[in-house]
Amino acid sequence: MKDVAARAGVGLKTVSRVVNGEEGVSADTEHRVREAITALGFRRNDSARTLRKGRTASIGLVLEDLADPFYAPLSRAVEEVARAHGALLINGSSAEDPDRERELVLALCARRVDGLIIIPAGDDHRYLTPEIEAGVAISFVDRAPGLIDADVVLSDSFEGAREGTAHLIAHGHRRIGFVGDQPQIQTAAERLRGYRTAMAEAGLPVDGSWVSLGPTNPERVRAETVRLLSGPEPVTALFAGNNRVTVTVVRVLAAQTRGVALVGFDDFELADLLSPPVTVVAQDPAQLGRSAAELLFRRLEGVDDPPRQLALPTRLIARGSGELPPEV
Amino acid sequence: MKDVAARAGVGLKTVSRVVNGEEGVSADTEHRVREAITALGFRRNDSARTLRKGRTASIGLVLEDLADPFYAPLSRAVEEVARAHGALLINGSSAEDPDRERELVLALCARRVDGLIIIPAGDDHRYLTPEIEAGVAISFVDRAPGLIDADVVLSDSFEGAREGTAHLIAHGHRRIGFVGDQPQIQTAAERLRGYRTAMAEAGLPVDGSWVSLGPTNPERVRAETVRLLSGPEPVTALFAGNNRVTVTVVRVLAAQTRGVALVGFDDFELADLLSPPVTVVAQDPAQLGRSAAELLFRRLEGVDDPPRQLALPTRLIARGSGELPPEV
Repeated sequence: MKDVAARAGVGLKTVSRVVNGEEGVSADTEHRVREAITALGFRRNDSARTLRKGRTASIGLVLEDLADPFYAPLSRAVEEVARAHGALLINGSSAEDPDRERELVLALCARRVDGLIIIPAGDDHRYLTPEIEAGVAISFVDRAPGLIDADVVLSDSFEGAREGTAHLIAHGHRRIGFVGDQPQIQTAAERLRGYRTAMAEAGLPVDGSWVSLGPTNPERVRAETVRLLSGPEPVTALFAGNNRVTVTVVRVLAAQTRGVALVGFDDFELADLLSPPVTVVAQDPAQLGRSAAELLFRRLEGVDDPPRQLALPTRLIARGSGELPPEV
Repeated sequence: MKDVAARAGVGLKTVSRVVNGEEGVSADTEHRVREAITALGFRRNDSARTLRKGRTASIGLVLEDLADPFYAPLSRAVEEVARAHGALLINGSSAEDPDRERELVLALCARRVDGLIIIPAGDDHRYLTPEIEAGVAISFVDRAPGLIDADVVLSDSFEGAREGTAHLIAHGHRRIGFVGDQPQIQTAAERLRGYRTAMAEAGLPVDGSWVSLGPTNPERVRAETVRLLSGPEPVTALFAGNNRVTVTVVRVLAAQTRGVALVGFDDFELADLLSPPVTVVAQDPAQLGRSAAELLFRRLEGVDDPPRQLALPTRLIARGSGELPPEV
């Protein structure tokens, strides 16, 4: 591609525009680019990236937690797309640690994967720049990268949390607690913003004591949920920030005598068989994985247009727990 | 180690015996070996394996299904042991396909992992012999390898299924169905054998129509469960061969008007919050992973004794579904 640009006397961006049939290139320039392409035998599928020495037909996936079932369908979908492209998938986990993410990503690059799909733990991905320049394709999923531009596929966490909270408000709740993941995690922050927005839109105040962000281990979530349900003015409803939080909240609520409404972010196995069945804001983890993998293979096939950001909609599934009336 | 053997004029096996303090080496030979070790500065932790060129401080784990939550705590435990040894963990999935297992294992070896933990999909692992000879440490977990000898950690599937079936018999059941995984999978066959043994020990016949083995996708399991519960003489209890089977059986039973007893092999998240709570024969997947990883690092530290086979006990957890009386 660089050779084409040099021969035609234009920038890489212009070559990319012509190759991808985008607007904004004069007929004369387009002609020169096409001539250079013909002269150099450049074809879209034979770009510099595709011809990178030692293509290994393997891609890497960096998760943040091996034990979170949310990532199971995501990983499997990535695997299926990789398989359809004749590529092997290699996984690793950052265990939500930015240093480990970087170590793992670089270890996979050193092992010559053609591309990487990353669920980021960190918020500075400039360490990837040399790898990207060396031809490694990268896409991010579930959370956006920090300080670099790359393809990314997200769920609309803000809108999902807003809709879930509005659902509780519509069922008469005024004091609604929010138990979420650590605040430096983008999705946790976005979901909290969605909750706050829904409350503000309904003209409801948010008491500082109703919001609890932190690690999602059962001990912390249990203690915080019990705290929110105690005192003279306990909350009558809870919004749980992800599936790990929800399964612990469900346990706490099962031991309560009064009914407490619950909406959880993320669907989870058997949610519909609990009593009451759990109302959730469902993401589509398989589609997240599939889209991220498709964006990656698009890059590996030589497509060189600007990074894309996809936001997949969430879906409120009303099952019972989110429709309970306020009870004190 | 080869240098020690050559210098002492003995075989590798003899060096290994001396290093590991085993019997069967004459005092004279032992003296020569120890002299050679001292001369060469050989220490147990600096064995040929440890000194293999290009140690990468990484190990691989080959799962059979990324989407089975049973493997989540197993993977995480392997990761924790790896981390404690300063090693990185790289995963992949065979998707229960022997060819893919082999492809993935060899791809990981080509990427120079120091060792591999494998949940086998296939039953012939002789393809690993050259890798083992080249110094790659291998341990198997959840299922034994085929046609090679290696460290392996299993749950006692036979005894667990026997105990679970005997539990149903003790609660008055005579017609007990068995829905399990594909018969060529060792654990599936062992669990079926445990079921048959418990029935035989109680002097109960097993009607061929009560046993259903095959893929654990929801469609097949649902159809087979409905079949077992239909007809003039339906079963009054079910033994489910693994957690993927159990969650589908639970769905079918939730739609039944009569009570059907259920014991499932494998514990699973929220089993205790269902109604009735589900009685299970629990494995300890974290301990399986931990033990397999510890065996692996033992090999990487140079221990060269004969392969070990560990069988971890299962644990019956009575919660309600397995204690229902027969009802027609």
